[in-house]
Amino acid sequence: MRPFPHGELASFLSRGVDDIVSRDEVNQILKSTKPVIVKYGIDPTTAQLHLGYWVIFRRLKKLQALGHTVVVVLGTFTGRFGDPTGKTKARTLREKREVEGVARSLSIMVKKILAPSRTKITQNARWLDAMSLDTFFHLLSHFTVGQMRERDLFQKREHAGKEVYLYEFLYPILQAYDSVAINADLTIVGSDQLFNELQARKLQHSLGRKAQGIITLKLLPGTDGKEKMSQSLGNAINVFDSAEEQFGALMSIPDAAVPIYAELLSDFELAPLVRASAKGGIAARDAKMRVAETVVAEIHGTHDAARAKERFVGRFRKHEVTSHPSAKMGAHTIVDVLVEIKMASSKNEARRLLKQRGVKINGNIITDERHAVSHQDVIAVGKRRTVKVIRKTG
Amino acid sequence: MRPFPHGELASFLSRGVDDIVSRDEVNQILKSTKPVIVKYGIDPTTAQLHLGYWVIFRRLKKLQALGHTVVVVLGTFTGRFGDPTGKTKARTLREKREVEGVARSLSIMVKKILAPSRTKITQNARWLDAMSLDTFFHLLSHFTVGQMRERDLFQKREHAGKEVYLYEFLYPILQAYDSVAINADLTIVGSDQLFNELQARKLQHSLGRKAQGIITLKLLPGTDGKEKMSQSLGNAINVFDSAEEQFGALMSIPDAAVPIYAELLSDFELAPLVRASAKGGIAARDAKMRVAETVVAEIHGTHDAARAKERFVGRFRKHEVTSHPSAKMGAHTIVDVLVEIKMASSKNEARRLLKQRGVKINGNIITDERHAVSHQDVIAVGKRRTVKVIRKTG
Repeated sequence: MRPFPHGELASFLSRGVDDIVSRDEVNQILKSTKPVIVKYGIDPTTAQLHLGYWVIFRRLKKLQALGHTVVVVLGTFTGRFGDPTGKTKARTLREKREVEGVARSLSIMVKKILAPSRTKITQNARWLDAMSLDTFFHLLSHFTVGQMRERDLFQKREHAGKEVYLYEFLYPILQAYDSVAINADLTIVGSDQLFNELQARKLQHSLGRKAQGIITLKLLPGTDGKEKMSQSLGNAINVFDSAEEQFGALMSIPDAAVPIYAELLSDFELAPLVRASAKGGIAARDAKMRVAETVVAEIHGTHDAARAKERFVGRFRKHEVTSHPSAKMGAHTIVDVLVEIKMASSKNEARRLLKQRGVKINGNIITDERHAVSHQDVIAVGKRRTVKVIRKTG
Repeated sequence: MRPFPHGELASFLSRGVDDIVSRDEVNQILKSTKPVIVKYGIDPTTAQLHLGYWVIFRRLKKLQALGHTVVVVLGTFTGRFGDPTGKTKARTLREKREVEGVARSLSIMVKKILAPSRTKITQNARWLDAMSLDTFFHLLSHFTVGQMRERDLFQKREHAGKEVYLYEFLYPILQAYDSVAINADLTIVGSDQLFNELQARKLQHSLGRKAQGIITLKLLPGTDGKEKMSQSLGNAINVFDSAEEQFGALMSIPDAAVPIYAELLSDFELAPLVRASAKGGIAARDAKMRVAETVVAEIHGTHDAARAKERFVGRFRKHEVTSHPSAKMGAHTIVDVLVEIKMASSKNEARRLLKQRGVKINGNIITDERHAVSHQDVIAVGKRRTVKVIRKTG
């Protein structure tokens, strides 16, 4: 069991970090040589782990390398009701069976990512299905309606005149109890989970336990560079995608997103990347390529990353030298553009093509219906034809 | 199984009634000859049933006489957390054992009051202790935070800057589920229970059941004539008090409270009583005596009621003719008066005397610390001495 290397600790506690609660406690935990239990909760919504999860995993791997234990809590109880975090409307309930199936897939993936000897995978249905209503009501006696309503998300819904269902309202208590059940000393989560994890601290405290430390990280945007990376928004790059797919997808992110990708997914010095991204053009493309190669290398190894890069560059060069018929576009999003330039007969067909992964822009498969098409993009639909789009001016 | 006698139905659905939901449904239920299940929930807070419960019981007895079944639900689960209804601050949680002890006593009392063949006594711990958290969260999915917050009580607390705990916030859902568990067709409750019972209708509807009808009755004030009758306020007259105690206590209510007592606890024509109470003096006293005798007769039989009345009148006459030393008083409540006229050495002693049932006013034992003493009341403390108090004028 090694203490955190002194030179790296400051970086670990600042790079990509949004908040630390409490900084003193977390500092103490990471400076000591006592092994700690680090909670990482995953909601079994889709059987995919995208790079948003990888942001956390790569930090958990670091802690494991120092001798700490990671307990991955798969939300097989909470997943039935759904984490309302970030959701502007209530989710429909899901079947126990379905959630458990997803959890099985996730469990296999997690085992491939984390160090087996220092990983424990568990499911919160283990304690929540076994919990009596009496115990639950005793937990509830530690929380007030006012405290729950303070949650950003609930206030946003309230102001928008949208309902918050009671099962959503109580979700933070369930997530909080996970930390009690596994005796968590520390948790690392996306910044949108801060409220829930603070409730865990409160509950641990109320039950006479030591409260967990919390590190929240900034959220990774999806390939659109705007929304949080998410399977359901179609802007995700998955951890288990091939090196080539990942490389292409990483090269499709907007230049402006390169610094946050680098901050969360690499150890590069950030300032030069920020400058290059701001500059645009070749400089930005090279910076993006360095980040893409590094991220892919961390997941698939340097060999695969180098090959993915080579292939991408080859394709890219080909696109640059090939002259394509061009079409003028007034529309902005890929669905509208496909119809406008007559590569799809209707919006519905355009959506189907995207879903079937039949649409490429500059050689990268695009699935996001809201993908914004840029001037001089090369759009290919299946093997039918390839067109370079030119934005109408005026 | 008899339908409700036509001439009586209108009275049953108006006398003492605050609200009926829905009037059509309840009308249908009571007009038919099909036996229905009438829910009556009792929170096992204190092992006493006062006349506030009797208001309901006497209506339940009427329904039983027609052939309907009454299911009394003792809140052995909910009682641990406490019905927040009417409470301006959160209650402390109570032990399962304690609540079950109280429920046992209540069960014995209920069996003495209701017709055994048409009464089922059950406890909501039976289904709520057995309920999984999963089932509970599915129930919660039918309710929104906004719907719960509509509750008067919660709004009052919120406006007063007082906390509502989550276990209180969810109380209506638990009470609602009782109706599902026992398949209630109808419930009769105090008007302060309307919100909770409306949630039962909503839940029954959501679960594809027939929604129960609700009859809410006006609340019976305590002997102070102000607050709702309640054990904890010390203004209660218990169903199992002796005929004499009840008679005396009923004679101690303010004249202004006679009409509501008569409305809820007798079948007297109300208009003459209202007039007599407003008139005051002998007319009011006679009206009060008629009501007292009727109420006691309904509980203890006409014989005991007549004897209780006789004794009361005897004592009353004696007080009228006996000349007592008099003392002047400026204070209003019994505690202050006892100290003022030196029948107690301190307020604490005065409170102790009241608690020990050692203080009588006009022959009736007074236990309420806030009992207002009137001009010419005869106060006796133990066997020590008896004093007639005269209000200081000016």
